[in-house]
Amino acid sequence: MRAAPPPLAGGVPGADALRPLLGAVLDALRAGAEERGGPLPAGGPEAVAHRTARLGAVLPETGTGPDEALRTLVQALAAGAADPADPLCAAHLHTPPLALAAAADLAASALNPSMDSWDQAPAASALETLVTTALAAEIHPGAPHPDALVTTGGTESNQLALLLARERHAGGHHAGGGHTGGGHTGKGHTRERPTGKGPLRTVVGANAHHSFRRAAWLLGLPAPVVVPTPRGVLDPTALHTALTDTPGPHLVAATAGTTDEGLIDPLPALADVCAAHGADLHVDAAYGGPLLFSRTHRPLLDGLDRARTVTVDLHKLGWQPAAAGLLAVRDTTDLAPLAHTADYLNADDDTDAGLPDLLGRSPRTTRRPDVLKTAVTLRALGRTGLGALVDTCMDLAQDLADRIEKTPALDLRARPVLTTVLFRPHHADDTTVAAIRRTLLTSGRAVLGRARADGRLWLKATLLNPHATPDDLDQLITLVEGSTHR
Amino acid sequence: MRAAPPPLAGGVPGADALRPLLGAVLDALRAGAEERGGPLPAGGPEAVAHRTARLGAVLPETGTGPDEALRTLVQALAAGAADPADPLCAAHLHTPPLALAAAADLAASALNPSMDSWDQAPAASALETLVTTALAAEIHPGAPHPDALVTTGGTESNQLALLLARERHAGGHHAGGGHTGGGHTGKGHTRERPTGKGPLRTVVGANAHHSFRRAAWLLGLPAPVVVPTPRGVLDPTALHTALTDTPGPHLVAATAGTTDEGLIDPLPALADVCAAHGADLHVDAAYGGPLLFSRTHRPLLDGLDRARTVTVDLHKLGWQPAAAGLLAVRDTTDLAPLAHTADYLNADDDTDAGLPDLLGRSPRTTRRPDVLKTAVTLRALGRTGLGALVDTCMDLAQDLADRIEKTPALDLRARPVLTTVLFRPHHADDTTVAAIRRTLLTSGRAVLGRARADGRLWLKATLLNPHATPDDLDQLITLVEGSTHR
Repeated sequence: MRAAPPPLAGGVPGADALRPLLGAVLDALRAGAEERGGPLPAGGPEAVAHRTARLGAVLPETGTGPDEALRTLVQALAAGAADPADPLCAAHLHTPPLALAAAADLAASALNPSMDSWDQAPAASALETLVTTALAAEIHPGAPHPDALVTTGGTESNQLALLLARERHAGGHHAGGGHTGGGHTGKGHTRERPTGKGPLRTVVGANAHHSFRRAAWLLGLPAPVVVPTPRGVLDPTALHTALTDTPGPHLVAATAGTTDEGLIDPLPALADVCAAHGADLHVDAAYGGPLLFSRTHRPLLDGLDRARTVTVDLHKLGWQPAAAGLLAVRDTTDLAPLAHTADYLNADDDTDAGLPDLLGRSPRTTRRPDVLKTAVTLRALGRTGLGALVDTCMDLAQDLADRIEKTPALDLRARPVLTTVLFRPHHADDTTVAAIRRTLLTSGRAVLGRARADGRLWLKATLLNPHATPDDLDQLITLVEGSTHR
Repeated sequence: MRAAPPPLAGGVPGADALRPLLGAVLDALRAGAEERGGPLPAGGPEAVAHRTARLGAVLPETGTGPDEALRTLVQALAAGAADPADPLCAAHLHTPPLALAAAADLAASALNPSMDSWDQAPAASALETLVTTALAAEIHPGAPHPDALVTTGGTESNQLALLLARERHAGGHHAGGGHTGGGHTGKGHTRERPTGKGPLRTVVGANAHHSFRRAAWLLGLPAPVVVPTPRGVLDPTALHTALTDTPGPHLVAATAGTTDEGLIDPLPALADVCAAHGADLHVDAAYGGPLLFSRTHRPLLDGLDRARTVTVDLHKLGWQPAAAGLLAVRDTTDLAPLAHTADYLNADDDTDAGLPDLLGRSPRTTRRPDVLKTAVTLRALGRTGLGALVDTCMDLAQDLADRIEKTPALDLRARPVLTTVLFRPHHADDTTVAAIRRTLLTSGRAVLGRARADGRLWLKATLLNPHATPDDLDQLITLVEGSTHR
């Protein structure tokens, strides 16, 4: 006779089954953080790989049981984490999630609704509709039918923006892979390119995210035309020249919150240039988008609503565990190319009978309800609470910049626009700057990023932790100074 | 003065902050399941949308606080769930997650490692390497350097399989979008198609998953050539004819566990045909892959290791919350086309200094450590425990088939191969079958799927709940019989 299967997470008994297991997870998270004792483990990749390898067999013949497995692996993960909740872990757009958002995420895992059909996610899909509609209206407040899709992050959002643009200019030969019966691949049809019109050209600044290059490659489009951005932002005159020199159709991708410097492209002027050239504008606001929640800083995003598509990540300046990406469109009909049918998920007669068709809401099929944690966060904090978190991190960046300016041994690249601060030791060359970063990293003392700007390599602090204190900022400075002098 | 920011999930204080919030989540999960009182809420989409809309503002000016927000939204999600932990929720490859896997997933959310660079995920990336290496060796046991990527599910895995095949046949003009400096989009270069060779043609059975059609469309490839599968599986002779008639290069996609009928294509014979034609073989074992853990049923997958790429989802017959997808490759060098560089994540000098380069492990950038829950499950249950869960569900399917055969009013489509059982009332037409499914759905009594086979529409039960009892199976039969007679 077989042993009873281990308990499930769902149903009425699920909550009781989860309780002791979550106790073990919390104990292990705490023990791991204490064991680590800093922003990341010391010793670098080799030490971490060595400790991980000593955990034992990945797939033993006989299991160790839930309690042992949870305690061992969760503690190892925590002890070996670069934990963004530590203020000295400030390299990337890698946010420290709010406890309430992480707690909400547990419910997504326990209930496991899958967003590809209504009969796998009745309330989860209804909730997603409410939240995406509300957030789309924040991004395109004047539009009559704004909409937004939930994505795995800025990379997927940017890819979708290119895909939608590709299809707008493809002459309507096909949409979403079309419909075929049986939930299965249907009759083959060869894709034809409309004649007399070139492929879509994506035009981006050199300051744009690497995902545009990768998306164009994935989608079989020509590589993006890259406009140099010596000042860190996309210049409208340079864009005008690029659009004049490159045959269309064009999709221009501007950035509100560049990865390296946290800068915002001049959106209104770029929108004007796009309008003059008949080019579509996409704005990658993965980083800067949540400024919309701040009464103080919202004006920095003026012009955002002139974009046809907008990328926003709430797992950056929105304190969500990954993933919490969005792609917003000014008009919901722009999403039509994603329409896709598979009889087992959205047969015509089911759709006619009123079952919502969810398959066109993502290029994925099975899809976790990442919207739940976002919904809980928006409701718990409200606009005021979220705006305050944004404002706090914006202030921290100004504070760090002040302190760097007052430190003779350090150079500040520029006053921060968002929450990214670039700085470097006054007399260091690029090799030294890169080495300082790695030294802090492998000694387990700080996680700082790196960015090239103005032809030089800089240390990068991305401040996303609203609990960081002035002392933490001083400590970052002291650590860099100390590494320089050795 | 601003209020103190809400607590974070990470660090030493994170565990204490999470404890009461998780208490609220568990209370709400239980209350929601009790309120629902069945596999899904009654009333259909309209009732669910109505209840969801009454929850109040998505983004209030002032927040309601963590406790209220968690209790309200999690209870609404649970009350409005189609909960796969209820044995009468058996429509899709929509698994009831194990409590231990959902608990592990919390740690992923709380620590929020992002798998795109080592300095965001030291231990998480080391753990992923261990687990993917071990699972790849299960899938391609004879290969010297098997490897596997973690994906968002079968859809992304199948898309990657097509992408890798596209690049193998693209003449080496580019890889992964190439390298450019600054972590940013680099110089534009137009992608050229190699001359004298047609584009990759994907060849699939009509029984294949719809994601192949969508992937070809996304990647700018011709739509797949579809080989009819009147018996539900891909016939080697028919494949031979298709490969003879279609100019190459070819990628053949076979299926181990079809979505509609749970059938397994004859892998060894198909591999022979592919070898004879010089075609690459991909196997979509999203559903059937975990048979590898069962001593009893593993032989059903003979031939799987002859595939160049294999899709496996552990969020189906592996009891993981979504997502837990894998794409396995026979040789790790096959992943080279995904190589991608962005200076802020994997600058050459950092890589030379020993920092692992993770960007080629996924088309995503930010990426949640979905591997943690899988690692915990493999360790806790071991091969024996996982195999026993597979065997239990396989037995349940045979048991349901037995009971249907003994029910005069019902027809069984065929003896199940995996855990999918197709049946229909003896005298019903397709319209009635579809209506029975919708009636059970909107009355909140059962979630059954639908599938077309042999030219007719069938009700589909996908048995993935190892806690289902003989009584549950009888109840499913009784519900369908009852709906027929009304």
